[in-house]
Amino acid sequence: MDSRYIGVFDSGLGGLTCVKQLSKELPYENIIYFGDTARVPYGSRSRETIIKYTQEAVNFLLQKDVKMIILACGTASSVAINHLICPTPIIGVVEPAAKAAAKATKTGKIGVLGTSATISMKRYEKELYDINPDFEIVANACPLFVPLVENGHTDSEVAHLVAKEYLTPLKKAGVDTIILGCTHYPLLSGVISDIMEGATLIDTGAEAAKHAKELLMGNNISKIQADYKFYVSDTPESFARLGSLFLEKDIDCLVEKVDFE
Amino acid sequence: MDSRYIGVFDSGLGGLTCVKQLSKELPYENIIYFGDTARVPYGSRSRETIIKYTQEAVNFLLQKDVKMIILACGTASSVAINHLICPTPIIGVVEPAAKAAAKATKTGKIGVLGTSATISMKRYEKELYDINPDFEIVANACPLFVPLVENGHTDSEVAHLVAKEYLTPLKKAGVDTIILGCTHYPLLSGVISDIMEGATLIDTGAEAAKHAKELLMGNNISKIQADYKFYVSDTPESFARLGSLFLEKDIDCLVEKVDFE
Repeated sequence: MDSRYIGVFDSGLGGLTCVKQLSKELPYENIIYFGDTARVPYGSRSRETIIKYTQEAVNFLLQKDVKMIILACGTASSVAINHLICPTPIIGVVEPAAKAAAKATKTGKIGVLGTSATISMKRYEKELYDINPDFEIVANACPLFVPLVENGHTDSEVAHLVAKEYLTPLKKAGVDTIILGCTHYPLLSGVISDIMEGATLIDTGAEAAKHAKELLMGNNISKIQADYKFYVSDTPESFARLGSLFLEKDIDCLVEKVDFE
Repeated sequence: MDSRYIGVFDSGLGGLTCVKQLSKELPYENIIYFGDTARVPYGSRSRETIIKYTQEAVNFLLQKDVKMIILACGTASSVAINHLICPTPIIGVVEPAAKAAAKATKTGKIGVLGTSATISMKRYEKELYDINPDFEIVANACPLFVPLVENGHTDSEVAHLVAKEYLTPLKKAGVDTIILGCTHYPLLSGVISDIMEGATLIDTGAEAAKHAKELLMGNNISKIQADYKFYVSDTPESFARLGSLFLEKDIDCLVEKVDFE
């Protein structure tokens, strides 16, 4: 039995979708979360800066002696994962989500949505073509989705208009499966499903959690009770308030501020 | 004659609106610009973090031996200016913009738009009530304006819808003057003017530049040729590209990256 924590990282609080799924899949595992809330968002930053910030987050989690790290952040997974120094097993969201999409599609036409940084890296395309080079993939950056969600526009007329614009190339291509390549996007599932009727939506945070379970299956994971810790780089209050909504449980006393400098 | 540089700071590139006005008002002054592009946006962050980041920016400019610092950032001006250690004269955008608005209004009804952090500080209200306690002030946070502008939505249906929502309380109150309390907002002037027909819009960056001129009038400022330097915390390329548009002149060779750690 390895009672060390699983480390989960996201640029902000979107990675809590992954934590929620982890607590379903692996209810007795201890979890440490780090959200880089003082420097979010990552999706519009340069490759160099994203790698630097992700390495700092990984270093922080390594200090906590975690047994595994999950990069729940779509941008960090796409841009940084192959450039990190990390002696502990590390999982990103790209590979598990690509596998889930490949399994779900019937037509072989797959859509990918993500931040500008994620889409420009074409990592989903690489993973999907490795599985089947005949897949038809349409990727589109959705830079306004994160600010919309963070300002409560998950089902408004504005959200519909913006989503319609971003989804146009996917609709034209007739995709039947869409990878929501950023942890904020599942909150727009309703709007996306309205526009892309019948398409299967892949939640990357949830898929990463399932993948983590597979990897840990070989270990003895039968712990009795799990502890959770959440670290953020900005003040804890707003993270705790919104995070409690994400997780559907009160995390007020579990959020702590960390300072890199 | 004091040939030292004027330091201009913004969280991103919006402060270039102030630089543009400075180059009109004080064509021979040398300017050093710092944009904290690796940590932009500030407007949604905590007071504590905004003060820390602004102090780091000020320290960087002080190292360059500037003779004056302009906080062109609405958020830094509202939240941090009274908490900084800075031996050099420092100007924010709040006071000059409040004065300009007080001068422009005929009805005494003034609107203030800004980021969430700016609006929550109520610094515009304090400045305006100091001038005239009978002013009627309606302030509203516009958290989606910056992401809209940065993604090219300056005149789209989406921009109109969002602006209409944010401007509703100002329209109801019948304001005749609006302070655009964030350097990005002048790019939405067209949309705002459409909705608030006849209202005077106050550009905070431009007002700060005019105020800087007044403060420097006592000095000998008759320099022959000005130098410009731009520092950013993320990679220079995208700043140089967009910044050249803001300034309407090529700054490709003048942008340099700086690292705080």
